[in-house]
Amino acid sequence: MSNRQSFVEQPGAASSALAVRQACRSGSLAAHTSGLASAHVQGNLVILPKAYAADFLRFCQANPKPCPLLGVSGDPALPALGEDIDIRTDLPRYRVWRNGELVDEPTDVRALWGDDMVSFVIGCSFTFEHALMAEGIVLRHVEQGRNVAMYRTSVATTPAGAFHGPMVVSMRPLRAADAIRAVQITSRFPAVHGAPVHIGDPALIGIRSIADPDYGDAVEVMPDELPVFWACGVTPQAALAAARLPFAITHAPGSMLVTDLLHHRLAAF
Amino acid sequence: MSNRQSFVEQPGAASSALAVRQACRSGSLAAHTSGLASAHVQGNLVILPKAYAADFLRFCQANPKPCPLLGVSGDPALPALGEDIDIRTDLPRYRVWRNGELVDEPTDVRALWGDDMVSFVIGCSFTFEHALMAEGIVLRHVEQGRNVAMYRTSVATTPAGAFHGPMVVSMRPLRAADAIRAVQITSRFPAVHGAPVHIGDPALIGIRSIADPDYGDAVEVMPDELPVFWACGVTPQAALAAARLPFAITHAPGSMLVTDLLHHRLAAF
Repeated sequence: MSNRQSFVEQPGAASSALAVRQACRSGSLAAHTSGLASAHVQGNLVILPKAYAADFLRFCQANPKPCPLLGVSGDPALPALGEDIDIRTDLPRYRVWRNGELVDEPTDVRALWGDDMVSFVIGCSFTFEHALMAEGIVLRHVEQGRNVAMYRTSVATTPAGAFHGPMVVSMRPLRAADAIRAVQITSRFPAVHGAPVHIGDPALIGIRSIADPDYGDAVEVMPDELPVFWACGVTPQAALAAARLPFAITHAPGSMLVTDLLHHRLAAF
Repeated sequence: MSNRQSFVEQPGAASSALAVRQACRSGSLAAHTSGLASAHVQGNLVILPKAYAADFLRFCQANPKPCPLLGVSGDPALPALGEDIDIRTDLPRYRVWRNGELVDEPTDVRALWGDDMVSFVIGCSFTFEHALMAEGIVLRHVEQGRNVAMYRTSVATTPAGAFHGPMVVSMRPLRAADAIRAVQITSRFPAVHGAPVHIGDPALIGIRSIADPDYGDAVEVMPDELPVFWACGVTPQAALAAARLPFAITHAPGSMLVTDLLHHRLAAF
């Protein structure tokens, strides 16, 4: 008991979203946000100079399934997404990109911020996975403690300005009855990728080998299962890389913005 | 113009449901109801002596996907389903069963009616097919003017009294994106079989050959399509046959009760 004060408490599943953000801000949390403040929506982050922001906004709006926008702001605060957010400090770790190359992975980007910066927060699959698991659907990659398997497809996004590239999808193997249920459940969450974009034969969307994901970890698809594919938030990251902008900031993989929104707040019905 | 009065007008897609029923009652319509009064819900009919009605009701309630009840009545009228319905005369053609054998196919069953008869009207796939086509989904069997392909499965229904047997499913081949959309659309219609029960490998539900349906007509499944399976209203007919009741009346295949309900009236949301 007497020692308790001398430790910084690490946030956990039951923490408030604000506590997670404050742990990031104080520097006590620089790791993944997966599983933290687990009732709350997490978001991917893209920060761009204003000169590119309008095109990126158009890109997101033209490709809403892979790039569902939860919030856009020209200010470090994002009051619609959470109390006292400072987008420059409240993620565990960032990635800094110059001319399309990764140049740094800081835990704070205040020194890089300027009045011409625009932040985009994009929905992520954690929310719909939470909804699937709440309905009793077992997700193999979660069960096995792996990252979800992700693939570049032959489906092109609608380009906007410098932003272009393939749609990236995540894959979860499910038995048919669960796949049908998963369509129903994820259809309720258009703000976090919504319904699947493909079910079945991977070759039809240009995936050569299901055993060789382009991102994340491979998971097995059993003979009585269908691979079910959802549009993935890596799509805007791939489009950003393809655009080779002079300057951009993103979240580091797995180090997301934890918002105050409850998952069920995003349910469309 | 002067000749017009001398013809009995045949009902068509734009007819009212009441006009279709009156054409049945007058004897001027004894053929299929497919495509007639096309905005309106059609239903399968089962008429049983009261002694078996409670078990059949339990069977339907225990198996709501193949046996969605639109109405139950111990009276020839069914005011909840339409104006001035006389269930004994208002279908084009009936089938009369004794000890599980088909013994007659009359156009009127008034002579067989008694105070102990109970009518069951069960939802049919015409309504969800209407909704799918309204969303631009092409159904091959409709396009080719065939009956939908139906199969007995290895999935057992929950038995009740004498009623038991396999779930029968209908199959429509769809590309994955349309299959996903079809799950969304038909989920809105629980009163007419609702969402599919299976997608993909037919063997997983005990169907040996997709080219050899047990009822209806075979349709081809293209290499870029998935077979999508819905619970089918033939299931209660198969359970009725299995029960080998002393006496039962059903609609003749394709000769349904045309109700006053508009299709969209059955949408759950």
